[in-house]
Amino acid sequence: MKIAVFAGDGIGPEVTAQALRVLDALPIKVSLIEGDVGGVAYKRHGLPLPAETLVAAREADAILFGAVGDFDCDHLERHLRPEQAILGLRSELGLFANLRPAKVFPGMEGHSALKPEIAGAIDLLIVRELNGDVYFGEKGTRTTAQGLREGYDIMSYDEGEVRRIAIAGFEAARKRRGKLCSVDKANVLETSQLWRDVVIETHADYADVELSHMYVDNAAMQLVKSPGQFDVVVTGNLFGDILSDQASMCVGSIGLLASASLGERKTAYGTFGLYEPIHGSAPDIAGKGIANPMATILSLAELLRHSLGEEQQAARIEAAVAAALADGVLGGDLGGTANCSEIGDAVLTRL
Amino acid sequence: MKIAVFAGDGIGPEVTAQALRVLDALPIKVSLIEGDVGGVAYKRHGLPLPAETLVAAREADAILFGAVGDFDCDHLERHLRPEQAILGLRSELGLFANLRPAKVFPGMEGHSALKPEIAGAIDLLIVRELNGDVYFGEKGTRTTAQGLREGYDIMSYDEGEVRRIAIAGFEAARKRRGKLCSVDKANVLETSQLWRDVVIETHADYADVELSHMYVDNAAMQLVKSPGQFDVVVTGNLFGDILSDQASMCVGSIGLLASASLGERKTAYGTFGLYEPIHGSAPDIAGKGIANPMATILSLAELLRHSLGEEQQAARIEAAVAAALADGVLGGDLGGTANCSEIGDAVLTRL
Ligand SMILES: CC(C)[C@H](C(=O)O)[C@@H](O)C(=O)O
Ligand SMILES: CC(C)[C@H](C(=O)O)[C@@H](O)C(=O)O
Repeated sequence: MKIAVFAGDGIGPEVTAQALRVLDALPIKVSLIEGDVGGVAYKRHGLPLPAETLVAAREADAILFGAVGDFDCDHLERHLRPEQAILGLRSELGLFANLRPAKVFPGMEGHSALKPEIAGAIDLLIVRELNGDVYFGEKGTRTTAQGLREGYDIMSYDEGEVRRIAIAGFEAARKRRGKLCSVDKANVLETSQLWRDVVIETHADYADVELSHMYVDNAAMQLVKSPGQFDVVVTGNLFGDILSDQASMCVGSIGLLASASLGERKTAYGTFGLYEPIHGSAPDIAGKGIANPMATILSLAELLRHSLGEEQQAARIEAAVAAALADGVLGGDLGGTANCSEIGDAVLTRL
Repeated sequence: MKIAVFAGDGIGPEVTAQALRVLDALPIKVSLIEGDVGGVAYKRHGLPLPAETLVAAREADAILFGAVGDFDCDHLERHLRPEQAILGLRSELGLFANLRPAKVFPGMEGHSALKPEIAGAIDLLIVRELNGDVYFGEKGTRTTAQGLREGYDIMSYDEGEVRRIAIAGFEAARKRRGKLCSVDKANVLETSQLWRDVVIETHADYADVELSHMYVDNAAMQLVKSPGQFDVVVTGNLFGDILSDQASMCVGSIGLLASASLGERKTAYGTFGLYEPIHGSAPDIAGKGIANPMATILSLAELLRHSLGEEQQAARIEAAVAAALADGVLGGDLGGTANCSEIGDAVLTRL
C-alpha cells in the first residue's frame, strides 16, 4: 500500500513529520511517496500543483496532506496561488465528499467560546460537497453595458452531483444517530431548490434516516445556539466551507480536528482519499516547532480507517491521542506548553 | 411625514401593534398607511407583494416592517412565496444597504450560547449589500449535455454596486470605532476579487478608517472565537445573510435586535428606509400574544433616527427599552413571563 505525503507550507511539514513517526511505529507495511504542493511547490517548480505531484497522487491509495498557504504568494495570479493545489487535487482526483467531524474531546469543553455544556454536546459530522458549486463554475470579469468592471461566478449543481453527496450523507447518518440535516438556501437559489428536490428523492432509499432541511442562515444560527441538535449535516461546497469552519470553532480546539476527502475510486481495502488537519498553514508559528500535530495524527487515523481498512490501528491512534490529552499533554493552542515533537513523543509512548 | 406599516405574517402584526403604541405616545405628527405583504398578501390578493403595497411604500418616508413567512405557502411557486415580498421591496426600492447592529444589552450576556465575557464584548455592525450578488442574478434550471437536471444561479457584482456599499461601510466605521473588515472569498471567487479590489480603491477616500480583509470561512470562525474584535463588517448579500444571522445568535437575545435597510432616496430629514426586527414570523407562537415586541420597538427607533431625523425620540425609545430590561421585564425568549402587550406597557411607562 502506498501513501502520498504532501506536507505543503507553513506548519505543514512539522505536523506531518510527527504523523509519519506514528505511522512508522505501526505494524503496517506501506511505502511513502513525497510530493510538493502549495507555495513551496510554486517556489520549486513554478506551479502550486506540479504534474509530478499529481502523478504521485494518482498512484497512491491515500494522501496525507499538511497545509497550504503562504503570504509570499498573495500577489500571484489566482492559478498560481497555493490554494489551487488543494482545489486542483479535489477536482482532478474526484474527491467530492469532504467529511468533517466536529466533536469535543473529553475535558476540552472549556476551550470553546461556547458555554461548556453547549460545546460538550457537539457531536456532528459535516458532509461537504467538494467538486461543484460556485467553486468550479465558469468565472471571470467582464464589462457591463454601462462600462463598469464586473466579476461573476456561476453557481450550479446537477442531479448526479447532488445525488452522490446525498448518498454519502445518508450513509454516514446510518452509521451514526440516523439523522441527516440538508442545508441550502432554497428560498432564494435555484441551485438549492434542485439540491433540495434531489435530496428528497434520494431519501426514498433511506427511509430509516430522519431527514430535515434548513436554510443556511438558520443553520449558522443553530450551530451557535444548540449545535448538539445536529448529527450529520450535508451541504454544498460554499455553504460547507463556511459552516464546517464555524462548527470547528464551536468545538474550540481546532488543533485536534481532522478531515477526510473521499472520491469514488476504491483501493484494495477501502476508498481512495485525501486526509488533512482542518487548521491551515499558520505562517505566524511556522518553523518554531510549536504547532500541535494532533490533528494531523488524527487525520492519519482517518486515512488508515477509510483508505487502508485498518480500523484497529486507527482506533489505537485515536486512543493514544485521547490518553495524551487526558494526561494533560497540551499544545500551546490549548494553553499548554508541549511542543510539536513532545506531543509526537507523548502519542508514541501511549500507542 | 408618512410611515408605511407592513405587519406581514405570524407574529408580525402583534409586535408591530406594540411599536405603533409607542409611536403614538411620541410628540411627533406622522400619518400611517398600512399595506399587505407576505403570506397574508398572497391570501388576500394572490401576490406576496401587491401593487398597492408597493405604491404605499413609494409614497412613504419610511417603512415599518413586521415579518413574512407562512408554512401554508411552502408549496407555492417561488415568485408567490412570502419571502418575495421582502426581496421585492429591497430591489424595487433600491434598498441596498442593510445595517444590522449586534450588541448585548447590559445584563443580557447570560442569554448567549457564548461565554458571557465573550458575548459581552460584542459591539459590531454588519453592513450587508442587499440588491445584488447571487440573489438577483439570472437563475433557473436547465438540462446538462448528459441529460441531467441542473439548477444554476449567477453571482456577480459590478464596481458601482461594490463602491456604494463600501462607502456605507466606511461611513459607518467613521461614526464608530474606525475599523472596517471586508469579508469575501477572493481566494476562490472572481466576484469577491472584484469586491476586494473596489473596497481597496474606495479606501483611498477613507484613509482614517483601518481596513482589513477576511475570508468568509475565517469570519464565521472569528465570530464565534472573538466577536469582540469586529467594529464594522461589510460584505455581500449572501455572506451577509449568513454572518448577520450568526452574529445575532452570538448576541443571544435575537428578540432585541433591529435592522435598517437604506437606499439612496432622501426624505425631508434623512434617508428613506425599511426597518424590521431580525427575528422572523415565528409561526409556532403566532397569535398567542407572547412574542417579544422589543426588536420591533427598537426598529421604530432606528426609523425615527435614519428616516425622520428624530434622534432624540429614537434615543428616548432605546432608553425606555433598556430600562424595562434592567427592571427585569423579560419576554419568554429571555426566560421571563412578560407577554407582548405587557412589554409594550412597560416600555410606554418608561418613555
Ligand atoms: C483554501 C480554500 C480554497 C479552501 C476552500 O475554500 O475550500 C479552504 O478554505 C478549505 O475549506 O479547505
Ligand atoms: C427571507 C430571506 C429571503 C431573507 C434573505 O435571505 O435575505 C432573510 O433571510 C433575511 O436575511 O432577510
